[in-house]
Amino acid sequence: MIKRTKTRKIYIGSVAIGGGAPISVQSMTNTDTRDVQATLEQIKRVADAGCDIIRCAVPDEKAAKCLCEICEASPLPVIADIHFRGELALLSLDADIKGLRINPGNLENPEDIARIAEKAGDKNVPIRVGVNAGSLSKKWREEIHQGTCTVEEAMVESALVHVRLLEKQGFELIKIALKSSHVPTTIQAYRLMANRCDYPFHVGITEAGTPRIGIVKSCVGIGALLSEGLGDTLRVSLTADPEQEVFVGINILQSLGLREQGTEIISCPMCGRMEINLLPLVEKVEQHLAKETIPIKVAVMGCIVNGPGEAREADVGIAGGKGSGALFRGGEIVRSVPEEELFTALAAEIDKIIEEKKK
Amino acid sequence: MIKRTKTRKIYIGSVAIGGGAPISVQSMTNTDTRDVQATLEQIKRVADAGCDIIRCAVPDEKAAKCLCEICEASPLPVIADIHFRGELALLSLDADIKGLRINPGNLENPEDIARIAEKAGDKNVPIRVGVNAGSLSKKWREEIHQGTCTVEEAMVESALVHVRLLEKQGFELIKIALKSSHVPTTIQAYRLMANRCDYPFHVGITEAGTPRIGIVKSCVGIGALLSEGLGDTLRVSLTADPEQEVFVGINILQSLGLREQGTEIISCPMCGRMEINLLPLVEKVEQHLAKETIPIKVAVMGCIVNGPGEAREADVGIAGGKGSGALFRGGEIVRSVPEEELFTALAAEIDKIIEEKKK
Repeated sequence: MIKRTKTRKIYIGSVAIGGGAPISVQSMTNTDTRDVQATLEQIKRVADAGCDIIRCAVPDEKAAKCLCEICEASPLPVIADIHFRGELALLSLDADIKGLRINPGNLENPEDIARIAEKAGDKNVPIRVGVNAGSLSKKWREEIHQGTCTVEEAMVESALVHVRLLEKQGFELIKIALKSSHVPTTIQAYRLMANRCDYPFHVGITEAGTPRIGIVKSCVGIGALLSEGLGDTLRVSLTADPEQEVFVGINILQSLGLREQGTEIISCPMCGRMEINLLPLVEKVEQHLAKETIPIKVAVMGCIVNGPGEAREADVGIAGGKGSGALFRGGEIVRSVPEEELFTALAAEIDKIIEEKKK
Repeated sequence: MIKRTKTRKIYIGSVAIGGGAPISVQSMTNTDTRDVQATLEQIKRVADAGCDIIRCAVPDEKAAKCLCEICEASPLPVIADIHFRGELALLSLDADIKGLRINPGNLENPEDIARIAEKAGDKNVPIRVGVNAGSLSKKWREEIHQGTCTVEEAMVESALVHVRLLEKQGFELIKIALKSSHVPTTIQAYRLMANRCDYPFHVGITEAGTPRIGIVKSCVGIGALLSEGLGDTLRVSLTADPEQEVFVGINILQSLGLREQGTEIISCPMCGRMEINLLPLVEKVEQHLAKETIPIKVAVMGCIVNGPGEAREADVGIAGGKGSGALFRGGEIVRSVPEEELFTALAAEIDKIIEEKKK
């Protein structure tokens, strides 16, 4: 249903980005990259969580050298995250990295960029031009301060300077990110950039904070961009475990119909119309389906207003009544079930459907 | 920064909705409306959480009669939620309710609608025409089934039938909602309706589920609509306490710059570049600010890449280094602080700023 903006296609390892490819989910390790074992263990955990691409910070030469071992054993394509020093990008390219990220705010020397473009081009490794509002270079901060451009314009122009430098070397395996911790600034920056080029976009809200507020900011910002058709790969940035970033990223895509749902539970907010005790029932169903990978849609509804309708659209569902519930399957009422047996009856139907789907 | 779509203005009690008024946050009680005391206690809790408008289910005559006492003592304007039976709307209008919600999917008799419009008009009480995809009437379900219209079109047309019936009675204090548990369906329905009328919109994702997934769906859906300029009042529907709905609703508005921030904490996702232990520090700052109402922006950043930039934009902040951090205030480095003293130093600066702002 979402009409995605047409972009060019690049590949991070075997993961296609842009050109209509499925939107991929990225995360970043927060282990010390120089601790190869801890980093690889974390990469395996985020891979299990469903992550498509992982990025590692490269703060120094030792970290760059450790990338060789990390890339060799990583189940996910690895992107090297470079700031300040171009030679760290060149060194990282000696490892089997599948992508580079450079920051125009702190890597400005055109000769450095030219050298990086040449080596990345030889190795067919795409480069993300990743601008952060928090690390714009002095030139752009001054322009903003003087009022000659907005933050969003500075972000876009700053990225385009790098894009032109890369193109000058004949390098076009480019991806662009324009992140701010302020959601409307981020949205506006990507909207402006969409009118200026057709490179794929990596979208996200940077420094979104702890899960409590960071999930809201990320979902609002990334959700708004995706619903406008902007974004080819995403990262949710949270002050939390990277696995949690991945879960939220996948949930954003699923909620917009941009990735297949695994299990889906529809449940109502329990108003004064409800005559059964819904919350423990929903929690039990959630637990029952926690490890399930077969796509199944279950509706757990408190009353007859939207209950039958939602339960009809689901594979299986219940709609609560007075001390009992109606069990629905494939749009039909199967039977009425006393409240105390609702979970057992629903779980049995769920298991039956999953068995059938597996065949 | 968001350009809001121009709509007419109505009032729910003293809360303006539409016509450029601030976007209000609604919730719904999940107590039994016939239990006046429990309902009033819950209304007081959601009012304390920052809710602007509360809605109560009216499943029967007794609930309608209890509204008198509830409305008299409620700190928030009360909306009566009506399904199936028009006489419950008429009875509710005898109480001092400030709004009515009717559902075109289950209240279809034009004579009923005419009577409700007449009495609501006499009392100057606005009516929300609230369509849910889960409770579309048989006629529309059949049309969808036969492929003669999409779900979104059915939702819009179903609402417009009611709108025309109300207008026929000279009643125009109308608000519209078009909710589905499917996010893209909801977004598309509101987009279609925005081309058909200029009544204010109540936006939300219905039956979004438990907080884990419901927050993501609500933020993505409501965030996408608001970022397009659609939506004059909102409700986050969660299988959870109504207070939590209110917190998430307020956070959505704040993240889009549509409501003033109280305290704001910017914190980074802690990559392999970080050399201080950030998470406990962020958690302590969050706790320190938990009850604060003075607007203050604090940046807690792990490293020098975006650290100084974000800390500069904040009222106060730290950017981590090796075993220490730089304390920033109003864009200037105040001093370097050893890691073990970072929280104490930051908290002292925060308290100082809050004291100054209070004066």
